[in-house]
Amino acid sequence: MNDNKIDELLQNFKEANLKPLWTLEHDVMPFSPKPNAIPWLWKWNKLYELAEDAGELITLEKGGDRRAIALANPGLGGMPFATETLWTAVQWLNGKEVAPAHRHTSQAIRFIVDGAGSYSTVEGDRVYLERGDLVLNPPMLWHDHGSDSDERAIWIDGLDIPLTKYLNANFFEHLHQDVQEVDTVKNYSILKYGAGTMKPAWERQKPMYPPISTFKWAKTEQALMDLAKSGDACPHDDIALEYINPITGSSVMKTFSCWIQMIRPNVHTQAHREVCSTVYFVFEGSGYSVIDGIRFDWQQGDLFVVPNWKLHEHVNTSEERAILFSLNDRPTMEALDKYREEKYQENGGHQEIKSVF
Amino acid sequence: MNDNKIDELLQNFKEANLKPLWTLEHDVMPFSPKPNAIPWLWKWNKLYELAEDAGELITLEKGGDRRAIALANPGLGGMPFATETLWTAVQWLNGKEVAPAHRHTSQAIRFIVDGAGSYSTVEGDRVYLERGDLVLNPPMLWHDHGSDSDERAIWIDGLDIPLTKYLNANFFEHLHQDVQEVDTVKNYSILKYGAGTMKPAWERQKPMYPPISTFKWAKTEQALMDLAKSGDACPHDDIALEYINPITGSSVMKTFSCWIQMIRPNVHTQAHREVCSTVYFVFEGSGYSVIDGIRFDWQQGDLFVVPNWKLHEHVNTSEERAILFSLNDRPTMEALDKYREEKYQENGGHQEIKSVF
Amino acid sequence: MNDNKIDELLQNFKEANLKPLWTLEHDVMPFSPKPNAIPWLWKWNKLYELAEDAGELITLEKGGDRRAIALANPGLGGMPFATETLWTAVQWLNGKEVAPAHRHTSQAIRFIVDGAGSYSTVEGDRVYLERGDLVLNPPMLWHDHGSDSDERAIWIDGLDIPLTKYLNANFFEHLHQDVQEVDTVKNYSILKYGAGTMKPAWERQKPMYPPISTFKWAKTEQALMDLAKSGDACPHDDIALEYINPITGSSVMKTFSCWIQMIRPNVHTQAHREVCSTVYFVFEGSGYSVIDGIRFDWQQGDLFVVPNWKLHEHVNTSEERAILFSLNDRPTMEALDKYREEKYQENGGHQEIKSVF
Amino acid sequence: MNDNKIDELLQNFKEANLKPLWTLEHDVMPFSPKPNAIPWLWKWNKLYELAEDAGELITLEKGGDRRAIALANPGLGGMPFATETLWTAVQWLNGKEVAPAHRHTSQAIRFIVDGAGSYSTVEGDRVYLERGDLVLNPPMLWHDHGSDSDERAIWIDGLDIPLTKYLNANFFEHLHQDVQEVDTVKNYSILKYGAGTMKPAWERQKPMYPPISTFKWAKTEQALMDLAKSGDACPHDDIALEYINPITGSSVMKTFSCWIQMIRPNVHTQAHREVCSTVYFVFEGSGYSVIDGIRFDWQQGDLFVVPNWKLHEHVNTSEERAILFSLNDRPTMEALDKYREEKYQENGGHQEIKSVF
Repeated sequence: MNDNKIDELLQNFKEANLKPLWTLEHDVMPFSPKPNAIPWLWKWNKLYELAEDAGELITLEKGGDRRAIALANPGLGGMPFATETLWTAVQWLNGKEVAPAHRHTSQAIRFIVDGAGSYSTVEGDRVYLERGDLVLNPPMLWHDHGSDSDERAIWIDGLDIPLTKYLNANFFEHLHQDVQEVDTVKNYSILKYGAGTMKPAWERQKPMYPPISTFKWAKTEQALMDLAKSGDACPHDDIALEYINPITGSSVMKTFSCWIQMIRPNVHTQAHREVCSTVYFVFEGSGYSVIDGIRFDWQQGDLFVVPNWKLHEHVNTSEERAILFSLNDRPTMEALDKYREEKYQENGGHQEIKSVF
Repeated sequence: MNDNKIDELLQNFKEANLKPLWTLEHDVMPFSPKPNAIPWLWKWNKLYELAEDAGELITLEKGGDRRAIALANPGLGGMPFATETLWTAVQWLNGKEVAPAHRHTSQAIRFIVDGAGSYSTVEGDRVYLERGDLVLNPPMLWHDHGSDSDERAIWIDGLDIPLTKYLNANFFEHLHQDVQEVDTVKNYSILKYGAGTMKPAWERQKPMYPPISTFKWAKTEQALMDLAKSGDACPHDDIALEYINPITGSSVMKTFSCWIQMIRPNVHTQAHREVCSTVYFVFEGSGYSVIDGIRFDWQQGDLFVVPNWKLHEHVNTSEERAILFSLNDRPTMEALDKYREEKYQENGGHQEIKSVF
Repeated sequence: MNDNKIDELLQNFKEANLKPLWTLEHDVMPFSPKPNAIPWLWKWNKLYELAEDAGELITLEKGGDRRAIALANPGLGGMPFATETLWTAVQWLNGKEVAPAHRHTSQAIRFIVDGAGSYSTVEGDRVYLERGDLVLNPPMLWHDHGSDSDERAIWIDGLDIPLTKYLNANFFEHLHQDVQEVDTVKNYSILKYGAGTMKPAWERQKPMYPPISTFKWAKTEQALMDLAKSGDACPHDDIALEYINPITGSSVMKTFSCWIQMIRPNVHTQAHREVCSTVYFVFEGSGYSVIDGIRFDWQQGDLFVVPNWKLHEHVNTSEERAILFSLNDRPTMEALDKYREEKYQENGGHQEIKSVF
Repeated sequence: MNDNKIDELLQNFKEANLKPLWTLEHDVMPFSPKPNAIPWLWKWNKLYELAEDAGELITLEKGGDRRAIALANPGLGGMPFATETLWTAVQWLNGKEVAPAHRHTSQAIRFIVDGAGSYSTVEGDRVYLERGDLVLNPPMLWHDHGSDSDERAIWIDGLDIPLTKYLNANFFEHLHQDVQEVDTVKNYSILKYGAGTMKPAWERQKPMYPPISTFKWAKTEQALMDLAKSGDACPHDDIALEYINPITGSSVMKTFSCWIQMIRPNVHTQAHREVCSTVYFVFEGSGYSVIDGIRFDWQQGDLFVVPNWKLHEHVNTSEERAILFSLNDRPTMEALDKYREEKYQENGGHQEIKSVF
């Protein structure tokens, strides 16, 4: 009889737009994270082939703005999101093409796979793009891309679109003209702020985002080689550098961070898991990662995802260096006091491989 | 013919778990926020009646832990979420009952409607609850509730459950015993840290969360009266106070903030909209709010929601003070550089009322 | 012969305005701090008697501005400085007198011994002064004092004058009129910001100095009593509170901090020493302090000084509470990374008394 | 008759170790800064000649530790201080000599004039010194210097000795051995942290001092050239860079900052004055500075001083670049809320030259 009354009560709750906690068990407050995103890998061959097709078939017109093809994690119900918070796409720009100027509150970066005469202009500061460059688009700065050459350029886009959408915080504007006016000094922001260990002495404010538009690959590579020489390394990530705002030491974006890391030949790192999700792009080399017991073999150009709280470790099986570029939402987790880490203690830190992707 | 090829390309994208930006238009990057949560109001009479029924029919056992009945915003597909990021529930505790000790990473507060001999114990610091008290449960601190009297107690729960779930950052643990050991000094944390303008001189660290477990109503009310006497007021919120961590000046939680505000008799505030969402509880008085052109009349005990980026203004139509307690996710927005505000400039700041809820 | 050459070299250095390190030994870089200020105590009877004489003989005219009589530490060569960094004076204001408005970059506080109808106005915010009130004068805010009654008022001034002089950072201005315009709301800043655990919700900036002009004694005393009830105490300072900026948790001034502390009856604290100097004012009670082995007996109204890095401990020999107000330059030391502390481990933390002052 | 009484009162004050404010006028609180340090210049020829003599006559033994010859500002009564807060010395190290390991709370840097096979070791991190390198000695880190070659090395020492002495905050210790153990990886800290725009991803703390022991000249020079190319410059200091902690963006020391600046050929900067003092070392080139109306001509190797609140402007009269290294106590002033700046508005920002030094 009581059961009938309880059923009636539940019905009454429903009609009143109420939901009792005790019917939810631990769906809303699980004992530990249960992400919907799943570990996944996208092969470069396939990505490139389809991007090339798009380059032929799809024109860049106002409205589209960018020929960007987003990773859609199979666990996220068809949404174009690599993880719950991160958007990652391959962007293809044909020779002589222009991706018109716009701005938005989503925080954005580009990691260049092949620059080929293309440029990025952020608030009038134009930089020509080379393989390995990291380009920043802080929120609400006007930016456009274009190509002076006949060749296609290709890069990886990283944005916090899923997070911004979830937070209902997006604003987006088109500029009245396709291409911004450009400063007369090329590489202006790199010349002015690029040293990292020094800053213009007369500027006293601490900018929220890095004042440099681009981290050039030559310097990044040098930093990786230097760190390797120092003799120190991370047990989980080997020779790993975080790109930082040189004036504050903070991550390049407020919601996500960018890393570059070298897994040296024959290095096998130890597994750990973190309350944050990461998208990796294989910039150089080959090897595999074990994510939640699944082995993902990767080669240059592949992209793969480590969802929240999944154990992961990396292995370089070759005699050449492997270099991974990645973005992760750890700054979001830290800002909101949600970050946690747990090292895998068993078996020397190496997971048992339960399956191969 | 090209169309066929494009269709084929789209099919290939789908099979490869890719999604092109140009098919999404501005679904993922809208020109301005388009929240799913809608403005809504829950009447106290109904809430109380159903909570009372639950008090009779539903026992508190391990597993359930709390007799909490959550607001389920009709725009959020049946999820027990008041807005995209905020959980708000009415909690009912019968006389002599104990809500057993647990802890979790979700950040939590309780605002007491009727204390009636009940207490809250956070990490051994027990405080007896009175109407208008704000009780804090910072993440991963053990907390339990109980009642020494024969009467039921009732309060409003506020948590960041939806955000924590979205971020996949929840951890939850039960204590091995129902009720924690209790410090011998009652109100310990209030006695030690409650002054606000002074602090124990020998403690130098800056705690991330307020070291006081409870903001007592007597002090809160005095602060409201004092602020009113100062002659200053907010055009949008009249006599509005934010509860703060007295050692840092920050919001009580990292992901959300708590406010108490008095709308004085006959005051009609000016509308504005913000990139943040708010849940209001009518602690005293009556009046109405206009949210996105809809008039919501409210009385003591009602709860209502202002979603993200919706214009809102408040009116006290009576000759008595009206007091609103609220929680909002502005700290999340500010930490991630997503906050924005826009004042409504037309018509003296007052929206046209298009409908009545 | 070499000695002659060395003498000649030293002479040459001198003529060239050079000074070799090796002739200085550890004068400039001692092995541990060797302050010039010495432990000292000024008796209230004497101070009061001389201040009263000054009240009769010395008129307040433009130029003089304040009838302030400064403690001149005998170790500091006749300078009016209590310690190397801190100025402390007794200020006497006759009934109906006005101490005209001025402002300066020195950071200043007043601790009221007897208010007697006098007021302090800081930037138009007038507060009537009562025994035990702490009044703030942040840098470059206009301030004047006056009396509406026929009686004299008396208080303790604390400023960073010696530090500001040393740093060559003082600016000083007279207002064109003796007395500022006054806000119509009395106690405006206390009403608006005095709660400490809450703040006006619409003000987002974090002010460098406390926005309240005065910490009223009634609240201070309550906080002391509450802290005593909490059961916690400092081994070196017993029931000790630091006044803080309620919006940031920082010390009231950037260069110095203010404390109020109660030594409970029969309490004998443990000695320690710190890289900072402190000036104490005995607000209530009697007892003694042992400073660097010297016993200083004190009674209500006395002022005494603990120089840098001198061991000190406090004793209340009576059955009544003793209350000490103090200022110390610890914020300066911490800001410049100079602070250190060392506990006295021997003999249960109690120094041997080598002499009595 | 009253005068007699006042005289008597003053005598009584004196005997009671009191000093009335009204007898001091604005000695202790001047209307604007009146530093004792005066503008001064030391010629390199003379400095070098005397340092060379010292190299012959004075041996480095325990106790002396360093063959450092300090600038003694003629306004500071024979004290070995360049300004009220800053110590600057020329240090001479003979070939094969060792300056034994010690540590102290004074914050210290070395700017290398001629390295010549010498090294600096800070906490085991050994760096070989080259002309133009800036070496850091944060407080209480063990450091020693030595030479592997037969030639003398020479550099400029910069420390906050006067400030630390004034604050009574110095601690000093000798290591039990002359020379520290050395890390096996040369330039360890530069390799690990030198990039500036990236940091080891697994280190999350923000170090108070730069984790790099040395800023190498090659990188510094490149940064100057790059900044010049950016087209931006400071009206008062031309191409001026502040060395920073790459992990926080703060000045290299808590009490003082180091700058490197290029005055381009024929540039004449505009005068301003600041609440801070600066010591300049002419690293390259020739020109003059006008300080408080006095023209100081300088050439490579000269050292000169701009005291607090003195107008100053710089001129490069040659066709070659002039490079000035400098240290200033602005971080002290900012930390204590004492900094101020005033631009000289008359005569196009150029002072009238009243005399030549």
